[in-house]
Amino acid sequence: MSEEQQLNDTDDLQERLREVESLLARHHQATAAPDPDSPQPAQSEEALTTRQQALEALDELRVRLDAMHPADVAYALEALPLEDRLLVWDLVRAERDGEILLEVSDAVRETLIDAMERHELVAATESLDTDELADLVPDLPQEVVEDVFQALPPEEQAQLRAAISYPEGTVGALMDFDMVTVREDVTLEVVLRYLRRFDELPEHTDKIFVVDRDERLEGVLTLESLLTNDPDSDVRAVMKKDIVRFQPEDEAEEAAQAFERYDLVSAPVVDAENRVVGRLTLVAVVDFIREESEAEQLANAGLREEEDIFASVWDSVKNRWAWLAVNLVTAFVASRVIGIFETSIEKLVALAALMPIVAGIGGNSGNQTVTMIVRAIAMGQVKPDATRRLLKKELGVALINGILWGGLLGALAWWLYESVSLGVVMTAAMTLNLLLAAFAGVGIPMLRQRLGADPAIGGSVMITALTDSGGFFIFLGLATLFLL
Amino acid sequence: MSEEQQLNDTDDLQERLREVESLLARHHQATAAPDPDSPQPAQSEEALTTRQQALEALDELRVRLDAMHPADVAYALEALPLEDRLLVWDLVRAERDGEILLEVSDAVRETLIDAMERHELVAATESLDTDELADLVPDLPQEVVEDVFQALPPEEQAQLRAAISYPEGTVGALMDFDMVTVREDVTLEVVLRYLRRFDELPEHTDKIFVVDRDERLEGVLTLESLLTNDPDSDVRAVMKKDIVRFQPEDEAEEAAQAFERYDLVSAPVVDAENRVVGRLTLVAVVDFIREESEAEQLANAGLREEEDIFASVWDSVKNRWAWLAVNLVTAFVASRVIGIFETSIEKLVALAALMPIVAGIGGNSGNQTVTMIVRAIAMGQVKPDATRRLLKKELGVALINGILWGGLLGALAWWLYESVSLGVVMTAAMTLNLLLAAFAGVGIPMLRQRLGADPAIGGSVMITALTDSGGFFIFLGLATLFLL
Repeated sequence: MSEEQQLNDTDDLQERLREVESLLARHHQATAAPDPDSPQPAQSEEALTTRQQALEALDELRVRLDAMHPADVAYALEALPLEDRLLVWDLVRAERDGEILLEVSDAVRETLIDAMERHELVAATESLDTDELADLVPDLPQEVVEDVFQALPPEEQAQLRAAISYPEGTVGALMDFDMVTVREDVTLEVVLRYLRRFDELPEHTDKIFVVDRDERLEGVLTLESLLTNDPDSDVRAVMKKDIVRFQPEDEAEEAAQAFERYDLVSAPVVDAENRVVGRLTLVAVVDFIREESEAEQLANAGLREEEDIFASVWDSVKNRWAWLAVNLVTAFVASRVIGIFETSIEKLVALAALMPIVAGIGGNSGNQTVTMIVRAIAMGQVKPDATRRLLKKELGVALINGILWGGLLGALAWWLYESVSLGVVMTAAMTLNLLLAAFAGVGIPMLRQRLGADPAIGGSVMITALTDSGGFFIFLGLATLFLL
Repeated sequence: MSEEQQLNDTDDLQERLREVESLLARHHQATAAPDPDSPQPAQSEEALTTRQQALEALDELRVRLDAMHPADVAYALEALPLEDRLLVWDLVRAERDGEILLEVSDAVRETLIDAMERHELVAATESLDTDELADLVPDLPQEVVEDVFQALPPEEQAQLRAAISYPEGTVGALMDFDMVTVREDVTLEVVLRYLRRFDELPEHTDKIFVVDRDERLEGVLTLESLLTNDPDSDVRAVMKKDIVRFQPEDEAEEAAQAFERYDLVSAPVVDAENRVVGRLTLVAVVDFIREESEAEQLANAGLREEEDIFASVWDSVKNRWAWLAVNLVTAFVASRVIGIFETSIEKLVALAALMPIVAGIGGNSGNQTVTMIVRAIAMGQVKPDATRRLLKKELGVALINGILWGGLLGALAWWLYESVSLGVVMTAAMTLNLLLAAFAGVGIPMLRQRLGADPAIGGSVMITALTDSGGFFIFLGLATLFLL
């Protein structure tokens, strides 16, 4: 991060975005609609002046952009409609393109990359570290990737190949290669002199790694201990030996939990032979946590990925259709369950009005259970053998809710339709559907976990499908048996 | 964090938890059911041996716990049922109680605090910094808080009072007071000597703050620049002046976004006169991000707070009832809307089977829209004047989905019930309800934002209520008008 770039808190950032927008507006105003009275606008003096103004606005914008942090430029790009976005993108200095591409969301990145030539893309990657390159590679056209690869020195080619090879969600995919290592048999004074030879340390260096001659990790030396201990001490005497280390294959989520548990800022990543192969930083972990939580939010609402808010209607439709299709199928199944009981409904039309309550409350309650269980599983606190205990508890909760809320609704049904037996059926159906919801709410994530699948995925849709169809079936079935 | 405590990645942590559990099991086994054949078990040699074994198991457990990191002890406490949890809690050395209380979840913390005497609680707080105390205070009994307060030196009393005064979700509530400050007119050598006088620096110190004689912030000096620059340089020449700083009143969410944007590890917190009053660290920010994302997940499913997985059935019922009550009311309203059209349903019972599809798909689509809009608002990229543009787009998406999916379902309805006009009504109702969902999905969060309320809250319930009742009304209304 160069010193002269301005950093901003959010209010300033909004201010800056408004400046960009007003410069764009000035530019557009000046280029827009030439005076209809002058038939040759390009010749007239007035037109020259406005063209001049349009260019000046762009120049000023270019200067502003240069003074902004890459993350802030990314923010502005995301907030602008496509046409303005590409105009601004053209004004950004080429050597900053790479950093900015890393900062924007996937959807916006796509629009920017689409607008770039092959050689521009290759140039954009030149300022990036291999771990950053690895993040960008999946979005680049194949031929650009090949060019980039060719341009790297052999060591970095190997790093890039390694970084790409680790699947998303592993430590390997998050780690960087910017570590400083020292030997344990030197004094702190030697380390201090060694560090002073650097222009700057890798970002977020809070500790340096102590390794033996085979690059095997022996311990870590925090910058703090380097600063607070006698420079004549040996590294060996000062370093910490009991350290959290990760392997590239470890799950990123587990590493994130360890970072939180132990308040880490960085940690070494080692291979099976304990050789240091990379470094994981809290900054990378935070990005991961955010992305994961966003992906979860989006997935909960059935959005495949984050949408560029300026995406076309058609892109939005594509991003959302899969979820709607799944829900359509489950809704159709539920509708067919009702279809079975059409003669019952014909005889007692009150059933049609009451049945959505039974289904809906079952779905709500089931979603509460599944959310609770998924969270407990994610924290690693639910072993598969806990199923019975959890089931007992959730069934207990469902029973109480069934008697309480089911009873209340039964009373309302009785009052509305002046039928005690309808009220009793209502209460019984609510209770049974809540029990079904509890059973599925515990069972589905636990089963998925046991099968090695992600317990968090799809639970909500499955529960809702079950409590809808099940709720209709239970309520209409009971009514058919006992009321008709 | 003391050096001899073992740190663990998740697998080790599970291992450690199993060790704790097996020691508990050994203890329980030895204390359980004395041999029924020996009428005076306390006297018999065998009974003495088993009692001995029970105590030994506890001793071994105590040693294990001492070697565990506070966060890992917290993890074990959360994974144990109440009785075992309190047994383990008794074995933890009193001076570690405070740290561990900070690490456990709110629900589990409550169970631990309930089991502690007043003097134990006061003792537990003695090892904590004022910012940590501030996190614990809301959960402590009033008389304990008074004792704790009395025991603090005046300066820390003031800090604690300040820290408590900032509402949750502000920078003030997250900041700590562990900052190191220096003057700009000294050399790095002086700073290095000053730091060497510390036994250890505050945790997560990556920069020290440069202040003038009135404690006004002049710049920051990173440990890195301290290590890589010539010790004879002046602080003034090396420090960074363009820095992200926060005020205690700033929103924590905005600070979190700034930390991510600029990859910060720590940042100064200043008052209105630019005097340094505290420090915000990435570690605190990460805790905030996690908690916020968890709170959101729980709120989405209508759970008031995280549940202790060993909570009683009754505690769980209380945690969930408010949400069920709200949904019951909205379901009841939807049921009454259907009630209006009972005569129509009596005449054409197919309506009963088809109506949940119209309502359900509207709800799903509305939730997609609201999720997208809420995220865009949270990123600060949607200004209130964007309502029209977003509305236009979402209505476009809804129209396409209505024609596509509504058309498909219309065709199915036609095929199932052999009525073209029923199919047309179905398609029209789907489309209208999707348009309603899009309208509400954009309108509700935008309106809440304009009214200064949190756009993320309650959107889903309101949408679902609207698309249920609205969907039933549109479908049954159209059917009554055109089919009967």
